[in-house]
This record gives sequence, C-alpha cells and structure tokens, in this order.
Amino acid sequence: MNPDALRKLLAGLRDGDVSIDDALERLRRLPFEDLGFATVDTHRALRCGFPEVIFCPGKTPQQVATITERLLAHDAEVLATRADRAHYDAVLAVRPDAEYHEAARIIACNRKDKPLPEGRVLVVSAGTSDAPVAEEARVTAEVMGNRVDKLYDVGVAGIHRLLQQADHVFDANVLIVVAGMEGALASVVGGLTSRPVIAVPTSIGYGASFGGLAALLAMLNSCASGVCVVNIDNGFGAGYIASLINHTNISDAQT
Amino acid sequence: MNPDALRKLLAGLRDGDVSIDDALERLRRLPFEDLGFATVDTHRALRCGFPEVIFCPGKTPQQVATITERLLAHDAEVLATRADRAHYDAVLAVRPDAEYHEAARIIACNRKDKPLPEGRVLVVSAGTSDAPVAEEARVTAEVMGNRVDKLYDVGVAGIHRLLQQADHVFDANVLIVVAGMEGALASVVGGLTSRPVIAVPTSIGYGASFGGLAALLAMLNSCASGVCVVNIDNGFGAGYIASLINHTNISDAQT
Amino acid sequence: MNPDALRKLLAGLRDGDVSIDDALERLRRLPFEDLGFATVDTHRALRCGFPEVIFCPGKTPQQVATITERLLAHDAEVLATRADRAHYDAVLAVRPDAEYHEAARIIACNRKDKPLPEGRVLVVSAGTSDAPVAEEARVTAEVMGNRVDKLYDVGVAGIHRLLQQADHVFDANVLIVVAGMEGALASVVGGLTSRPVIAVPTSIGYGASFGGLAALLAMLNSCASGVCVVNIDNGFGAGYIASLINHTNISDAQT
Amino acid sequence: MNPDALRKLLAGLRDGDVSIDDALERLRRLPFEDLGFATVDTHRALRCGFPEVIFCPGKTPQQVATITERLLAHDAEVLATRADRAHYDAVLAVRPDAEYHEAARIIACNRKDKPLPEGRVLVVSAGTSDAPVAEEARVTAEVMGNRVDKLYDVGVAGIHRLLQQADHVFDANVLIVVAGMEGALASVVGGLTSRPVIAVPTSIGYGASFGGLAALLAMLNSCASGVCVVNIDNGFGAGYIASLINHTNISDAQT
Amino acid sequence: MNPDALRKLLAGLRDGDVSIDDALERLRRLPFEDLGFATVDTHRALRCGFPEVIFCPGKTPQQVATITERLLAHDAEVLATRADRAHYDAVLAVRPDAEYHEAARIIACNRKDKPLPEGRVLVVSAGTSDAPVAEEARVTAEVMGNRVDKLYDVGVAGIHRLLQQADHVFDANVLIVVAGMEGALASVVGGLTSRPVIAVPTSIGYGASFGGLAALLAMLNSCASGVCVVNIDNGFGAGYIASLINHTNISDAQT
Amino acid sequence: MNPDALRKLLAGLRDGDVSIDDALERLRRLPFEDLGFATVDTHRALRCGFPEVIFCPGKTPQQVATITERLLAHDAEVLATRADRAHYDAVLAVRPDAEYHEAARIIACNRKDKPLPEGRVLVVSAGTSDAPVAEEARVTAEVMGNRVDKLYDVGVAGIHRLLQQADHVFDANVLIVVAGMEGALASVVGGLTSRPVIAVPTSIGYGASFGGLAALLAMLNSCASGVCVVNIDNGFGAGYIASLINHTNISDAQT
Amino acid sequence: MNPDALRKLLAGLRDGDVSIDDALERLRRLPFEDLGFATVDTHRALRCGFPEVIFCPGKTPQQVATITERLLAHDAEVLATRADRAHYDAVLAVRPDAEYHEAARIIACNRKDKPLPEGRVLVVSAGTSDAPVAEEARVTAEVMGNRVDKLYDVGVAGIHRLLQQADHVFDANVLIVVAGMEGALASVVGGLTSRPVIAVPTSIGYGASFGGLAALLAMLNSCASGVCVVNIDNGFGAGYIASLINHTNISDAQT
Amino acid sequence: MNPDALRKLLAGLRDGDVSIDDALERLRRLPFEDLGFATVDTHRALRCGFPEVIFCPGKTPQQVATITERLLAHDAEVLATRADRAHYDAVLAVRPDAEYHEAARIIACNRKDKPLPEGRVLVVSAGTSDAPVAEEARVTAEVMGNRVDKLYDVGVAGIHRLLQQADHVFDANVLIVVAGMEGALASVVGGLTSRPVIAVPTSIGYGASFGGLAALLAMLNSCASGVCVVNIDNGFGAGYIASLINHTNISDAQT
Repeated sequence: MNPDALRKLLAGLRDGDVSIDDALERLRRLPFEDLGFATVDTHRALRCGFPEVIFCPGKTPQQVATITERLLAHDAEVLATRADRAHYDAVLAVRPDAEYHEAARIIACNRKDKPLPEGRVLVVSAGTSDAPVAEEARVTAEVMGNRVDKLYDVGVAGIHRLLQQADHVFDANVLIVVAGMEGALASVVGGLTSRPVIAVPTSIGYGASFGGLAALLAMLNSCASGVCVVNIDNGFGAGYIASLINHTNISDAQT
Repeated sequence: MNPDALRKLLAGLRDGDVSIDDALERLRRLPFEDLGFATVDTHRALRCGFPEVIFCPGKTPQQVATITERLLAHDAEVLATRADRAHYDAVLAVRPDAEYHEAARIIACNRKDKPLPEGRVLVVSAGTSDAPVAEEARVTAEVMGNRVDKLYDVGVAGIHRLLQQADHVFDANVLIVVAGMEGALASVVGGLTSRPVIAVPTSIGYGASFGGLAALLAMLNSCASGVCVVNIDNGFGAGYIASLINHTNISDAQT
Repeated sequence: MNPDALRKLLAGLRDGDVSIDDALERLRRLPFEDLGFATVDTHRALRCGFPEVIFCPGKTPQQVATITERLLAHDAEVLATRADRAHYDAVLAVRPDAEYHEAARIIACNRKDKPLPEGRVLVVSAGTSDAPVAEEARVTAEVMGNRVDKLYDVGVAGIHRLLQQADHVFDANVLIVVAGMEGALASVVGGLTSRPVIAVPTSIGYGASFGGLAALLAMLNSCASGVCVVNIDNGFGAGYIASLINHTNISDAQT
Repeated sequence: MNPDALRKLLAGLRDGDVSIDDALERLRRLPFEDLGFATVDTHRALRCGFPEVIFCPGKTPQQVATITERLLAHDAEVLATRADRAHYDAVLAVRPDAEYHEAARIIACNRKDKPLPEGRVLVVSAGTSDAPVAEEARVTAEVMGNRVDKLYDVGVAGIHRLLQQADHVFDANVLIVVAGMEGALASVVGGLTSRPVIAVPTSIGYGASFGGLAALLAMLNSCASGVCVVNIDNGFGAGYIASLINHTNISDAQT
Repeated sequence: MNPDALRKLLAGLRDGDVSIDDALERLRRLPFEDLGFATVDTHRALRCGFPEVIFCPGKTPQQVATITERLLAHDAEVLATRADRAHYDAVLAVRPDAEYHEAARIIACNRKDKPLPEGRVLVVSAGTSDAPVAEEARVTAEVMGNRVDKLYDVGVAGIHRLLQQADHVFDANVLIVVAGMEGALASVVGGLTSRPVIAVPTSIGYGASFGGLAALLAMLNSCASGVCVVNIDNGFGAGYIASLINHTNISDAQT
Repeated sequence: MNPDALRKLLAGLRDGDVSIDDALERLRRLPFEDLGFATVDTHRALRCGFPEVIFCPGKTPQQVATITERLLAHDAEVLATRADRAHYDAVLAVRPDAEYHEAARIIACNRKDKPLPEGRVLVVSAGTSDAPVAEEARVTAEVMGNRVDKLYDVGVAGIHRLLQQADHVFDANVLIVVAGMEGALASVVGGLTSRPVIAVPTSIGYGASFGGLAALLAMLNSCASGVCVVNIDNGFGAGYIASLINHTNISDAQT
Repeated sequence: MNPDALRKLLAGLRDGDVSIDDALERLRRLPFEDLGFATVDTHRALRCGFPEVIFCPGKTPQQVATITERLLAHDAEVLATRADRAHYDAVLAVRPDAEYHEAARIIACNRKDKPLPEGRVLVVSAGTSDAPVAEEARVTAEVMGNRVDKLYDVGVAGIHRLLQQADHVFDANVLIVVAGMEGALASVVGGLTSRPVIAVPTSIGYGASFGGLAALLAMLNSCASGVCVVNIDNGFGAGYIASLINHTNISDAQT
Repeated sequence: MNPDALRKLLAGLRDGDVSIDDALERLRRLPFEDLGFATVDTHRALRCGFPEVIFCPGKTPQQVATITERLLAHDAEVLATRADRAHYDAVLAVRPDAEYHEAARIIACNRKDKPLPEGRVLVVSAGTSDAPVAEEARVTAEVMGNRVDKLYDVGVAGIHRLLQQADHVFDANVLIVVAGMEGALASVVGGLTSRPVIAVPTSIGYGASFGGLAALLAMLNSCASGVCVVNIDNGFGAGYIASLINHTNISDAQT
C-alpha cells in the first residue's frame, strides 16, 4: 500500500464510504506493508547519494545491464562492484555515459554535481598487491561524493615511507587502511591519527595468512583505539562507511 | 499504538476531528509500532502453549522469580531452563505450585489440562553423560503438551540396544537424538525412521571432541536425509521444535 | 532370507521336516538378515513418497541413467540432485517423461497424482545468489508432494521486503530459510512465525564467510527458538525434512 | 628533546655558540625523538577529550590509582575500563570526585562542561546478558562528550520491539549494536538506518557460539553496507569510535 | 526375546500351538531384538578378556561402585578409567580385592591367571608430563592380559635416549607412542620398527599446542607408514587396541 | 661404513695395523653411520614384504619409472600409489609385468608366491564415492600378502545392508572402515567386532564436512573402543597397517 | 628534507636569514620526514648485502623487469623470488647477466666478490617434494653471501639417513630445516645441534595437513629449545634470516 | 657402552681375547648406544653455557629441588622456568645461592664469570601485560651469558615511544619482540633493524585474540624479512635462541 492508496482509504473513511471496521482490518496489516519503508529508502538516497549497489560476481553481463537500466529509471545513480570489462561493455550499450574504473573493478553512473563535504577521506595501503581493494575503496568513496586522497605502498616494514607522508594522515577526516599479510599498518595509522580508521584486511599473503584471516584477527585486536574492521577484501564496504562518516553533520544540515 | 487508539484516530477522521494529513502523518510511523505484532505474539501463545521462556544462567534467583511473576500476570505458563535449586527456591516463594525437574534443570509452571496431539515424541540418547541434555529436551516437550517417550543409553557401539527397542523408533512421530563424542547415533536413527529427527550434539567427550564440535559436524553431515540439527547442548531448542512439529495440523485445526 | 524363505522354513518345522535346533541355528543369524528392514524400506516409500535419491556429482550421465532405470523398475519415483544437463540427457534416453528443473539442478520422475497435505511449505531466501539452493529445496518439497510457496530476495538489510509479505510467513505450515553471508534471515523469520523453521546456510559470501561457516554458526546460535539447521548448501535436505514435517498426521492416517 | 631544548639549540646556532656540524649531528637523531609526537598527543586530547585510557584487568587497585594520579597531573580526564569496586575504592582515595559506573565497569574522572555535538549516539543491544558490554559502550561515549540514547533488549527474535522504537533508530547520528549469539541485530539495524553502525559481537551464547566467534563472523559478513566491527566484547572501542565519528566536522571547527 | 523364548515359540509351531502367521509376525520384529547380539557380546568377553569398561568422570564414587558390583555379577573382570581415590574407596567397599593404579588412574578387578600372548607391547613416551596417559595405556594393556614394557622420557630433542634402547623397540610386537607438544616421537619410532604403532597425542604443551591439536595433526600426517592414531589423551583406547592386535591369531586359536 | 669395512678395521686392529686410538676415533662417529640401520631396513622387507612405496603425485611418469627400476634392482617388489595411467605406461616400458589397479590408482610389481596369513582383512566402505580410497586400502593389503574381503556401500543410513553381511564382519581378523560425511560407520562396525578397526575418513561430502574434517573428528571420538584412525583419504596407510597387524605372530614365526 | 636542505636551513638561521620560529616550525615536522631513515636503508644494504627483494607472483614479466632495472640503477644487486621462466626472459632483456635458479624459482643479479663469513649454513629437508622450498632457502642464503651445504631427503621415517650425515649437522653454524607433513625433522635436528635452527613448514601433505598447518603447529611446539619458525613455504625468509645470523659479529666488524 | 668400555673391547680384540665376530656383534648395536651422543651433550654445555632447563608447571616444589640437585652434581648451572615462590623455597633448601627472578618466574643457579660476547640482545615489548614473557626472555638470555637491554611498553599505537629509542634498536645484535593483541610491533621493529628478530606472541588480549593466535599469525605473516617466531608466551625459547645467535662465531672461536 503506497501513500496514495492510504490517502484514498482515509478519504473514503472520512467520506463515509469505508467503515471503521473495514479500515481497521486493512490497517492491521500495515506493519508488514511498504508504506513507511519506501520513505526510509528515499531518505537513504537523499542523504548518502547512493540508493543501490550491484555486486557483479555470478551475474551475467546482460543481467548487470538490465538491473542498471531498471535502477536508473528510478534513481540518478548506480554503482556496480567487482565488475569485469564484459559487464562494462553490456552496461555501455544501455548507458553510454557509464564509466569503468578498471583497477577498482567498478562501473559507475553518478551525478558529478553533488556538493562535497570539506573533510577528506584518505586511503592508505600496505603493498602493491593490495591495490585492487584499495582502489575499490577509493572509487566508492569518490563516486559517493567525497574528496579522496591516497597513500599507497607504505607498509610498516619501511615505516619511514608512511611517516614522510604524515601530513596526509594528520589532514584526513576519515581513514581507510588496506593491508594483507600481518595487517600491522592499521594499528600504526590508528596510533598517528585521532580520526576514525576503517581497516580492510586483504587476502594477500600465503601460508599461515589463511586467506586474510591473519590480517583480520590482527586488525580486530588492534591496540589503537579508533580502529574498526570490515570483511576481508571488502573495499566497497570501507569506502561506503567512510562516506557515511564523512557526511556526518554535513548531511544532517542538508535534510 | 494499540487497536483502541487506532479506532479512535479513525473515528476522529470520520467525524472530521482529524485531518487526512494528520492521520497520514500518524500512520506513516505505523510500520514501526506495536499494532500487528501484539496480535502475532498472542497467536503464538495460543498455538504453542508457551509464550515465553527464561534462560537462567547469569540471572540471580530473585531476578528469575521476578520475571516469572511478571510473566504469569499475563500468561498461564512459564518455563525456566538451566535453573539450579536456588532459582527454584526463589520461584517457589512467588509461585508455590512451580515444579522443578532436577535432571533437566527446568522450572515449570504449566497448565496440565492441555489437549495432547496423538503423535508421540521420542527422545533417544547415546550415553549416560548425555542425560541432562536429553532430559531438558524431554521435559520441554512434555511441558509444552506432548506425549514423550525416552530411550536412553543406546549408543552405536552396542547397536543392538537400539535395535531391541525398534518399536519405539517406528512408533514415534518426531524424534530427538542426543549424542556427544562422534554423534553417530543421529545417522543410525535417521536411517531407521521416516519421521523428522532433531539432532542435539552434546559437549560430552574429551580431546578432539572440541567441546561438541565433532558431534556437531557429524550430525550436519549425516548421510540420513531426515536429520536437522540444533546448537550444542541445546536440549530445550530440540524439545521446542519437536513440539512445534508434533502440533502440526492439530494446531492448524485449532486456530 | 526373505519372507517366503522364512515361511518355508517355518512350514518345514511345523511339518517335522526341520528340527528345532536347525531352525534355531538359521534364526540365530536373523538379526543380520534382510527380513524386517525390507519392510521398513517399503514403509518409507509408502509414507514419504520417495524411496531413493541420486546424488549426481562424481557420477557419469550413463551411471545416473542406469541407476534411474534400476530404481524405476521397483518404484514409481526417482529424484536426482545436483544434476547437470548431460545427466538429464542420459536419463531422457531411458525415461522420456523425466523432467529437469534447471535452476534447482534436479531431475524428477514422479507421480503427479499424490494427495497433498493441506499445510503449505514456504521457502524464503535472502539474496539472488542463494537461488539455486532455494530452488533445490522448493523442487524437492514439491516433487515429494507438497504445496510450496516462495519468497525470494528478502534479506534483512531491507527488512520491509519481508514484512510486506508477512501473510505468506503467517500462513505457512513449515518454513525453509535459505541465506548466506551472515544468515540473519533465519532468526528474523523464526521470530515472526510459530511454525518450525529449517535453516539452510549457503556458501554465498566472501572473505570471512569461510565458505558458509559464518551463516552456519549464526543459524545454530539463532536467538529464535524454533530454528533447526541442515548442512551448508543442503537445499535437498531442507526440502526433504520440510516434507516429512508437513506430512505429519496426514501420513499417520494413511498407514 | 623538547621544544625548549630545541629552541635553545637553534639560538646557540644563531648566536655562533654551536657549529652547523654539531647541530646537524644532534638533529640527525630527531626523527626518533619526542618533539613532533608530543604535539600530536596534545592534539589528540584537544580534539577527542580523552588522552589516555586504563585497561584494569591484571592491574592491582593500587596500580590503577597510581596511574590515575599520574595522568591527572597532566590531563583533566581519565577513563578506566573493566574496573571492579576494589579498583574504584583505591582511585577514590586519590581522587574523591571519581565516578563509578557499575554496570559498565568504568571509573571516570571527566570534565562535565564540554560542549556536546548535536548528533546523538544510539546504543542498541539484543539481550539482557549483553548489558555489560552495551553499558561500557554507552558510558564511554557519554564520558567522551556525547548525547547517548539506549535501546536495550530488542533482539531480532521479536523484531517488533525494535521497530516500535524506530524513531530512535532514525534519529541517531551514529549507532552501536551490541549482540551475542547469532549477531543478526547488526544487519537489521544496518538496514534501517543510513548512518554508520559499529557492531560489537559479545561472547554471550553457548555451544557453537565459540566465545563470540559466531556473532563476530556474522557481523563481518553483514549484508547491510554501513556496518563495521570491533573485537568481541569491546564495548569501550565501540564507544570510542562512535565518539570520534560523532565529533566529525564539529571537532574540525573547534581546532 | 532370548533363545529359550525362541525355542518355545518354535516348539509351539512344531506342535501346532502357534500358526505360521503368528510365528511370522513375531519373527518379523526379530532384527530388532536381542537374540544374536547377546551372543556377540559374550564372544567379546571370551576373546579380549574385558567385556565392559567404566569411564569415571562425571560419575559419583557410589555410582562407580554400584556399576562395578553389577558388572562383576556377570563377568569376572572390571576396568574403571580416570578414577580418583574416592572412586577407589567406594569400590573397595564392595570389592576388597580391587586394585588401584594411581599414576594410571585405573581401578582394576581382573583375573591374574589368563594365558599371555608371546608378543610384547611397548609403551614409549616423550616427556615426564605424558606419564599419566602412558600409564593408562600400559595398565590397560597389562590388565587385558599382555606382557608390557615401557620406555619413558625419550623425546626426540635427545634422540640418543631412544636409540640407546633400540632393542626394546625392535623386540616389541605392538608399540604405543605417547607424546604431546609436536608429537614427533611417533614418526621416529614408526621409522624404526616394522610393527604397528598406536600414536596417542597428549594435551601437554602450551600456546599453539591448542590442547593437543598440534600433536594430533602431526601424528595423523606421520611420514612413517605404520602409524595410526587415537583421540587426544586416550591412553585407554591405545592400550585396548594394542591388546586386540597382540591377541591376533593367538586369540583365534583360542575360540 | 658397511659391515665389510668395519670387519676390515677390526682385523687391522687385531693385526696391529691400526692403533686403538685410531679405531676409537673412527668408531666415535659410528652412531651416525649406516651400519645398524641397513640391517633394520632389510629386516623390514623380510617381515612385511614391502621395502619401499612410491607416492606419485608431483612426480612425472618418467620419474616414477626410474625410481621403480632402481628399487627393483634391489628388491623384488614395488608399490606406487595415486598413480594415473600415464605413470603406468611409463612403468610398463621398464617393467612389462607391472600391474595397474585402476580404481585403486596403484601400480604394483609384486611376488605372487608369498605365504598368506590365515586371518582375513575386511574393507568396509560407506558410499560409492568412497570407493577409490577403499580400493587403495584393499589393493595395498592384497599386494602386501593378505586375503582381503570387501563390503562396500553399507553406510549407516541403511544399517540393514551392513547387518545382512554380519558374517563378514565377524570373520575378519582386521577391519578397515572407509567413510566420509559423518563417518559414523566406524563406530557401528567397531561395536560389532572385537578385532582392531582402522578407520579412514574420506574427503567425501560438502559444506560443513570441511574436506573430511567432520569424519576425522567423528572417528577420533568414536564411542567404540577398538577404533584407531589414519589421515583423511589415506587408504594406503590403512591397508599397510592392516597388513602389519594381520602378520602379527605369523611373521614372528617366519623370522 | 634531506641533509643538504637541513644544512641550508641551519646556515640561514646562523646567518640571520631564518628566524628561530620559522626554523622551529619546519623542524616540528621532521619526525615524519626522510632524513634519518634514508641512512638506515643504506645501512641495511651495507651490512646484509641485499637492499631489495622482488616477490614475483601477481606481477607481469615486464613489471619485474622494470623494477629490476630501477633497483639496479641504485644498487648492485637484486633478488626476485617465485619467478617463472617468463619473468626471467623479461629480466634477461634488460640485464643479460641475470641468473635463473630454476628449482628455487629465483632470479639473481648479485656481486660474486663479497667476502664470505667462515660459518656454514646447512639446509636440511625431509622429502623430495620439499625441494622447491629448500632450494629457495639455499639459493637465497648463497646469493646473500654464505657458504651453504644441503642435506636433502632425510625425513625422520628413516632417521639413519640423517644420522649418517651427522658431521654436516655438527659443522653448521646456522641450520634451516624444511619439512611438510608432520614436520618432525625440525625437532630431531634441533636436538642434535647447539646452533640456531630456522624451521620452514611446507604445504606438502594431504588431508589433515591442512595446507601446512600440521607442520607449522608441530614446529612451533618443538620440544627442542633452539628452533624458531617462519611462515609456511617461506624458504626465502628462512634463507634471509640464516644469512643475518651467519653474518653476526662478522658484520659488526665491518661497520 | 661408554668410551672406556669400547676401548676395553678394542684392546681385547687387539690382544686376541675377543674374536672379530664377537666384536662385530657388539658393534652392530652401536648406533643405538650412548657413545657419540654423550660427547654431543657435553659439547652443548661447553658452547651455550646451559646443559639443562627445568619446566616447572606440573612439578611439585620437592621434585624441582631434587632435579636441581641431581643436575648440579654434573653441571655448574641450572635454569628453572615458570617457577613460583614455593618452587624457589624448595630449591633454596638444597642450594642456598639460587636466585629467583620473580617477574620472569625463573630460578637460576649460574656461573657469573662467563666471558660475554660483544653483541647486545635487546628485548622489546608492546604493553605492560607482556612483561612476564619479556622478562622470561631477558633473564634467560642474561643467565646464559649475554649483555641484555630492554625497551618495554613501546606498542605501535604510540610509535614515537619506539622511535625515540631508535638507538637501542640500531645497536642491538639480536632482537626479541614480545607482543600480544595484534602483534604488529614485530613487523615495525623488523623494518628498523638489519639484525635477526625473534618474535614472541603472547596470550595477552581478549575476544578474537583467541589466546594469542591473532598475534602468532600476524608475526608469521610479517612483511619484514628478518623475523622468525616461537610459540605463544615462549619467552624462554626466544631468550635461548637469541643467546645461540649472539654466541655465533664467538663461541666457535672458544671451542
């Protein structure tokens, strides 16, 4: 039942066309109908700028293109993650202005004119092999409307590389730290900043890294207090949360 | 917002005391209010006979007694699991007719006059150490209104003990199999019956039983098709589900 | 020793052709012979409608076809799971009326005229990627003789999609919940219904989902009382148990 | 080397009392001395309001009191977590105005006159047993200078309890979700809000909860996009990060 | 149904007092009755010398004494494992000639006049802390009627201690190797002998021994071919199997 | 240093050509030279009939052929496990009488005229998918010189299939039980026999079987006392140990 | 800021061109600039002989060649691990004197004229399948400037193979032990020598070796005191640490 | 057979009192006798300074005192780890000059006049709770004859504390890094030094630290090349290996 239908029901009641008992019966089911939530979802789009994201693995290029088309009929923006070039080609056919961020494996159809918050998001990564996940985080945050900087390949085995760029660390409003192997970078960055750090363990490593488990456990046990963690290789999730944080207060002022 | 309040709102709308927009605004929040669900909860009590269960560990005897009292103000029945004698003593003070099933560690205040379904629930257990969990399952099912039989200490290392009692296995409508160590009993019973089997792994065992993990994995991988599994040592859950299954059709007829 | 042979032995004893000691000696081995169990197995087919299921992985199309033929010589029905099209083509050659449920990966040769129980089975799934497992559950229950509804793609991140369809949830006699990732859907559905819920964790997810382990553990620890669990991706098992539950009382009346 | 000593060295150089080579030699070691970082640490205190936190387990009451005294000599505020009453009594002796939040197990000596950000932090918890962790999160956020609301005992097995309070969920700027067992509450809350959610798995549960592992994995695999996770039972960490997020932009304006 | 009852049934059939159909009906249930298996169990006692073993943990001294009494009414021998002195005192009251092997934590009431096989069982252990498990294995094998030697404290960090006693290793007919920590001793002994080796991992160790898991995995992966493994700390099981092996052929000649 | 060289050294000492100190110096290193162990190895071949086994995975066909040739130069027999047909073709080129057991994936060049022990080895397996491992065990035991029976496809979900063949179980001197999934068959067989049971978990299964871990843990925790366990899928190891056990006493008489 | 820039700043201060406040401001950032660390890195190259190592997996041949070229512009030496022949061909094009160690999968461009320490590194391995990891360790140590011996295929199942070569074990200054399966070799070698042992678990094995976990845990729990461990299959790391140890004191004398 | 007995045997052979065959027979068993290894063990004591270490847990004070006495009869030094004060009191009774290092839980009876190598051992620890393990490492290295420095409480969350002490890190010849929680300190220290780093994970932490597993995995996956790892909480092992490394070349020169 959508708002219009509800308004009609109420009007019928006011006008005597519907009895109170009939209205009660119809309303009894309301908690399980779509009225309120549709509002909520519109809310979400208004505030974050992104109502819907497509996870491409297991979907055919054609399926991704179809979902994109359907979503764009309602919203101005779409983000598709873990997309390969075949997915992109299919989307291009229905949406010629779609962009493909290859290193991040992301297809984006987004408004470029969104006002950006002042705060900057910084994506820090440990090694060159962590790049795809770091890029997924970076592009996600950027497409959702943030100023994003990056500081790649600054693993703790050569900690001076990180310290040389300390200004970037000090200036960021939200930080994303992407690291595989032992994941120590999250703790070191967490100790340098007083802003929230989103840690992303990656599956980079071999042997006892157990597909990212070593980095995941390390990050969960970080001795730095401002560190929280998302799933292994979940660059998208980190970029998404970072954007939510970076829109704090800003967004409240807008709604 | 309860049904009466809603009826009043609708009357106000019909009578012109409330505008459509005001009504809409109030109804917009309805999906998150209590209207429908209260109905559901009453439903539950009507059909299963047990609206609320108290998990005693971590609660003081006085807390358990207080919750019991509060629940009995609304419902006719209460079940408290993992209760020790101190919990019982406290409950006795507020409810002199409460019963304590010591081996099952259950306190029950339940109606004795419920009609029982024809089908029988059978609790099968592997070893004497599995008894507390088996009893928790048995008493739970009984208090919820079922005819329950038991067949204890029939582990597969002496499979004739089980086969000698095959009549019980054939006659049961729902079966609960409680076993620790390697949990093989669930598969053997599952192969003998064509009725649903609820398997309960117990933490009985040592070394590589890893607190019941061995039995849990074994039961999840059962080669018999009609076996489903609950948490380690969760005798209550097994008894509860067995009762839900055993009331199938019976309960439909009642609502 | 089959019943005929046994009857002949007993007749020989009655007629004096066999001595008591000889009969005793032959009967001493009886617990390990086929007499009673054959009866049991026939029993099973009568009650559940499905005496035998073929698990296709690791079997050649020809092997599946051969087993199908052999089974159909004795029984009226066959179900083959995890079948691909090659398996189906081979089965078609020996059984032209076999059906292939592609999304469910099931080949079925089943009687269409079985009486169906009144109760309905509802298959609920969280995401589009869970569809193959959900379909396996749905088709299994259907082929075994049940009215089955489905409610797909109602994951808890957008819980209104589930609540909008609450009627389906309330009306079902047995529910199957199929979910990967964090498996939270089982607990939410378990909290809405007072009927048994069979939870099926799927291997959908990445990183710390560890092939379905996260969903499995979540479902075993469900805070809703009426939830039991089958193996990861075991849609067939869930459909099978749901059918056993749904035939409760119905089947007792038939035997 | 502190700023004063450095200023003196530079003055000596300007005045010709120190040669360039001597100054170079002393400065060569600067990257490993305390100059810059002391500034950073003061920075931290200025922005977050809390320069230092004491983790009490394994420390004697006297040790906690001594550290408190030493810290208060430099800063206006101290927070001690997982403290028992004996720790508090020892702290009271040196700091009569220290407060003890018993359910949260926190000792706090904090300024009450800090300006609070507009945004509210909401702590949501699943069961009564999760209360100590939830309280640790709540008190931490409060003492660090935030308006904090709570919504306890709204586990997903009775999801209407949560939905009835949806206003709280909609109004919060940052959310902390505390849940043990299957941890499903994080996903449901994450699906209702468009603000960041900090999920805290607790060790509440038994059997296959494996000390909180089940809830931890579930939360890491949440199908809701805005959820990040801290260590099992780490209520303090969640409150700390929530405060960092809630001070976003606000705090920038202050420095 | 025991043999006498069966003989009576057959006589009734022969004499015309029982019809073939009645006999068939009664015999149909035979696979699930006790006829054959009772024989099997007697068989077991005859061949192995031990019909029943009591696992003491979780049983009161009185329970152990009662079970002992009941078992001795039928058999000449009883073995109780993991027994403490209180168990022993209770058993002594009902059976004054019971012996207590303190280091092995075993109570034994056994015949001393059994003929022993020629072959010798050798129990090898790695460290002094493994002694309780090693003794449990040694006493079990001894009480079941075997000549048992021991070679303790010969861990591989000082492999000469083992090699100096190589004669014992060469002379043994069956070997039991008890080791915690890294469990390497099983592979070394397995490489020295051409007789079967029963490896018993112990829970001795700390840190990454994970309660015996390290030794268990090591032994399962032994590069020596003749090594099989029992559960962690299962000295009894190792002694039992070693005795079965050592009675090979010997025992066949006896039955 | 071989025996001849040692004899020469001793003769030189006796004849005064070598001083005691020189001899001592040379003998000091003896513990680390090959004298005694060569004897041991010959011993092994004499007693078990198989001095060396080739594990084929990771070896080229040519490498397997070369090792075979080299081994046959010293011994009469060779066994190569996990061999594919390409390995066999290469071996055939150097050894035309080599045999290939396809289902067991074993290449064997063995003496056919070995005297066999009286006792029989029985290989029991649960499902058709366990066949390759069961065959590896069976052929290994056979080639090492044993009478071997098999009892396949008798999983516990249809336990009558096993009980119908109880004679085989009773008659066996050593039993090998091969099972994946929940591995319950080992416990059931262990409860029927009083002879040693070698349990082989297989990696057959899916989901929570975790590559055979479920069956492995189940078998280690077997409630039947005479069960020991080898590595997952290690059919060769089981056949090898079964042969060692079956040659007990027999072999002692031969040496 | 490099030393020259710093000298210039100090001269400006001395000459009155820079105020003390300006100098302070610039120096405040020094802890995060490159001054000291560049020195450290040169230090490293001077002492160990290897400033940089390329991990090839995931890099294209062209990328490896480009990195090699860039590194050689600054240093005299490069080591690339886990390289295949395609990587080597690309490197050859830019550096014709590069060498490829095929079994070790290492490309090396190294000075041959480095002075070698007196001490010898010994690489011991258990089985033929461990060779690639052992070779990686051996070549790494050799290229870094060490005398390296090897002792391969001396697993503990035939411990005489190791003891026959005890001289090598006694003579080594540092030992690397490479073993899969149960990893027992590390403990045995650790018990024979009084020099440090670097243990490298390999992923060789199947079933319950769990990709090298069994060997890893065994080595961490070694009963021999002088054993430390690196990651599974990390031959490079072991060779690198062995070289650091072997250059002890030697290198101190050089700096 | 000790050297004297061997010399006597050889003299008997030279003098014609023993035949060559008799000598051969006695020598055939030599590989398994004590000749060579006794020498090795003396060797060990000479080079490392510590022939034997007592692990106290599970031993009574009297047992520790007795072993101490027996060891001191042969050697000048004893080290007992994980000792409590009761152990110390018992040792004092037999050895009044024994010392007790309380924080390290070590009892030592050691020569104070050993020459020390020039190189220094540095023990670095992350948090105050890691102190007992760090002290165990420090005291072990000191008692074995090394100059040892310590740098405690320099966890990476405040990395300036470590960098301020960089001189100590640069000056050390061998480093021990002790850290619980996420264990990141090992990687940071490993990146600062070009000397070997022994990493000791501790069981400090809670929740997903899983008793030290998080730190252990992190250290095994360290991105710094010169890091090797010992068992969780194994401070003694780290001190022991550090001493072996620190005596490199020095010790060779001494023997």
